[in-house]
Amino acid sequence: MTRSIDARRTLTVALGERSYPIHIGPGLLGDPQWLRPHLAGRQVMIVTNETVAPLYLERLKAGLGDDLTVREVVLPDGEATKTLASVERIWDALLEAGFNRRCTLVALGGGVIGDMTGYAAASYQRGVAFVQVPTTLLSQVDSSVGGKTGVNHPRGKNMIGAFWQPRAVLIDTDTLSTLPRRELSAGLAEVIKYGLIRDVGFLTWLEDNMAALRGLDAAALAWAIERSCSLKAEIVAEDETEQGVRALLNLGHTFGHAIETHQGYGRWLHGEAVGTGMLLAAELSRRLGWLSDDEVARTREVLAAADLPLAAPADMSVDDFLSIMRLDKKNLDDRLRLILLRGLGDACIHDQTPPETLATLLEDFPRQ
Amino acid sequence: MTRSIDARRTLTVALGERSYPIHIGPGLLGDPQWLRPHLAGRQVMIVTNETVAPLYLERLKAGLGDDLTVREVVLPDGEATKTLASVERIWDALLEAGFNRRCTLVALGGGVIGDMTGYAAASYQRGVAFVQVPTTLLSQVDSSVGGKTGVNHPRGKNMIGAFWQPRAVLIDTDTLSTLPRRELSAGLAEVIKYGLIRDVGFLTWLEDNMAALRGLDAAALAWAIERSCSLKAEIVAEDETEQGVRALLNLGHTFGHAIETHQGYGRWLHGEAVGTGMLLAAELSRRLGWLSDDEVARTREVLAAADLPLAAPADMSVDDFLSIMRLDKKNLDDRLRLILLRGLGDACIHDQTPPETLATLLEDFPRQ
Repeated sequence: MTRSIDARRTLTVALGERSYPIHIGPGLLGDPQWLRPHLAGRQVMIVTNETVAPLYLERLKAGLGDDLTVREVVLPDGEATKTLASVERIWDALLEAGFNRRCTLVALGGGVIGDMTGYAAASYQRGVAFVQVPTTLLSQVDSSVGGKTGVNHPRGKNMIGAFWQPRAVLIDTDTLSTLPRRELSAGLAEVIKYGLIRDVGFLTWLEDNMAALRGLDAAALAWAIERSCSLKAEIVAEDETEQGVRALLNLGHTFGHAIETHQGYGRWLHGEAVGTGMLLAAELSRRLGWLSDDEVARTREVLAAADLPLAAPADMSVDDFLSIMRLDKKNLDDRLRLILLRGLGDACIHDQTPPETLATLLEDFPRQ
Repeated sequence: MTRSIDARRTLTVALGERSYPIHIGPGLLGDPQWLRPHLAGRQVMIVTNETVAPLYLERLKAGLGDDLTVREVVLPDGEATKTLASVERIWDALLEAGFNRRCTLVALGGGVIGDMTGYAAASYQRGVAFVQVPTTLLSQVDSSVGGKTGVNHPRGKNMIGAFWQPRAVLIDTDTLSTLPRRELSAGLAEVIKYGLIRDVGFLTWLEDNMAALRGLDAAALAWAIERSCSLKAEIVAEDETEQGVRALLNLGHTFGHAIETHQGYGRWLHGEAVGTGMLLAAELSRRLGWLSDDEVARTREVLAAADLPLAAPADMSVDDFLSIMRLDKKNLDDRLRLILLRGLGDACIHDQTPPETLATLLEDFPRQ
C-alpha cells in the first residue's frame, strides 16, 4: 500500500484550546500560506543549526514576507548541544532583539532544535508561541508532535523541560532528500515503534515496505509519516501530560536513554538507542511470557531491515544500565517502570519486573 | 474594622483542575495537617535562604514527619540571587537526590524563593508539584498566589519563567514577627495596590489602620492579608495567564521594574519600587485628566504612612526609565502599555499615553 503525495494532508492534535494542525507534504517551506497564519505577531525568531541553515533557512525566510521582524539563532549541530546553555543563547537573542510576548519562535531542524526551541518558548516571558518545522524523519514522526520540550542534564536526558504545545507543525517531506542515511534509519526506529505499541497492521506494512522507505520512495515515506503522526496525535490527545497511556510512546526509551547517557550524548543517535532499547523490551517481554520467539524474531528483523543496531555498546555493564535507569522520569517513588509488549501492537506499562530477570536480560543481551 | 485571627481561614483560587487553597493563620508551619495533604509523594525538597532557614526550617520539617525523604537547598538571600544559576542549584539537588516526577518542592521564604522554586518545579522533569510557604508580607499578599514563577535576566526582571500553579499556599502569620521593618513597608505597598486597583473601601480601611499594621497588630495584618489574597485570587481566576484583567495587578510595576533594573536588583526592595511606581502611575493618571489633585494626594499620603519612598533614584534619567520600560512584558509589538487609574479603586490598561506626556512626567517627578 502506498499513497500519492500530491495532496497535502492536515492532521489535528485535539487538545481543546491548545489544538493545532500538522501539515504534511512537499513544498511547505517556501510557501507563505503554511507558516504565516500561525504567527502570534510580527516578531519571528528562527532557531536552527549549522547543518540545516545552509540547506533550508533561506527557503523558510522566503515564505515569511518582508513586513516582519525576523531574527535567527544558528546553533551547533548535535545532541551534545541540547543543554541549558544553548537555550540561554536563544533567550539572549530574544532579549537582544527586544522581542515581546507576542513573538513566535520557529524551530527549523531535528529533534534537538525542536526540543530546545520549544523549551525556550515555554519559558520566555512565561510562554510565547512556537512552530515546529522538523527536517529529520525522527523529529517529523516523534518529537515535533506532542509538546514535550526540554534539555539534557549531565545526570540524565530531558531532565529539564516543560509541556508546551506548538501552534502548528509543518512537515515538508522534501527535506528528507538531504537526510543522512544513518539518520533515516534512526527515524525509522520511531516509525516501527508505532507499529509495535499500537498497530500491528502498520507493523506488517513496514515489514513489506522497508526497502521502499530506505530507498526514499516519496509516497511510502509520506504514508509512514502520516500514520505515525496520526497514532501519536491520538495518544497525545488522550493524555497530554503523560499520566497514563502516553507513557507507551516510551517503548525502548528507558533502555535507550541509558545507552545515550552512558555513551555521552550524540555518540549513538536517539533513534538508534531506541531501536536497541525496543529489542531489549521485546526480549524482556518474551522472558515474562508475553511474546513468542517468533514475535521477538519479527521485531529483530524489522529493526535489522531498517539498518539499526541490534546489540548494546561493548563497554556497558549491567550496573551501567541499572544505575541510569533508576533515574528515569517514568519511575514513581522507587519502582522501575518499563514499557513492555503484551503482544505485537499491544504495549503496556509494567512495574513488576523481578530485578533478577532484568539483570539476567542485560547480562545475556549481545554487545557490539 | 479588625477581625479575630483565632480562626484559620481558607480561600480558594478557582482554576478548575488547577484550583488550590490558601490557608491563612497562626501556627501553620509546625502543624502536619496543613502541608502533608498537598505532597504528591514521599520526596520533599525544601528550598529556602540563609536568612529564613535558621528561623523556620526546623519548624517546617517538624510538620512533615519521619516517613518522608526530605532534602533542602539553602540559597543566599536577596533579589540578586534570583537567577537561572540559583534554579540550576535546585535542579542539581533534585537530581543528586534522585527525585522523580512525584516529588514536591516547598518554597519557604519570600518572593524570590517562591518565584525560583516555582520555576524549578515547573521545569523539573517537565513539571512537578510545589507548595508556597511565604514568610514575608509581600510574598504572602502577592507572589505566592497566582502561579507566576521565574527568574531575572541581566536585560530585565522575570524575563525567564512559567505560569505554574502551586498545590497550596500556607501563610503562617506568625512569621511576620521576625520581618524587618523595611520589608513590612514593602509588603504594604502591594496591599495598598489592591485598594487602588479594585476596592476603594479597602483603601479607606488601610488609611484608617496603617498605624495598627505598622505596629504589627495581628488582627489588622490578618485581615489585610486575607482581603489582599481574596482580591488577587478573584483576578487570577478570571485571567490565569494575563491576557486581560490580570495585567491590572501590575499597577506601578512598569515604573517599579525600571527602577529595580536600573539600580541593580536588590538595592531597592520590590515593594518600595512598586510604591514609587504607583505614585508615578497616579500622577500620570492626573495628567491624563482621570484623577483629581486630592486623589493623588490620598495616594501619596497612604504610601507615606506606610513609610515608602516617594521619589525616584537621584541618578535615574528620563532616558533610563524609557529604555528599560520599552522591554516590559506587557508591551505588544512596539506600543508601551501602562496600568493607570481611571479613579481610586478603578485601574485600567492604557496604551495611548502621548510620549511627551510620559517624558514630562518623568522629568518633573521628584528625585531622592
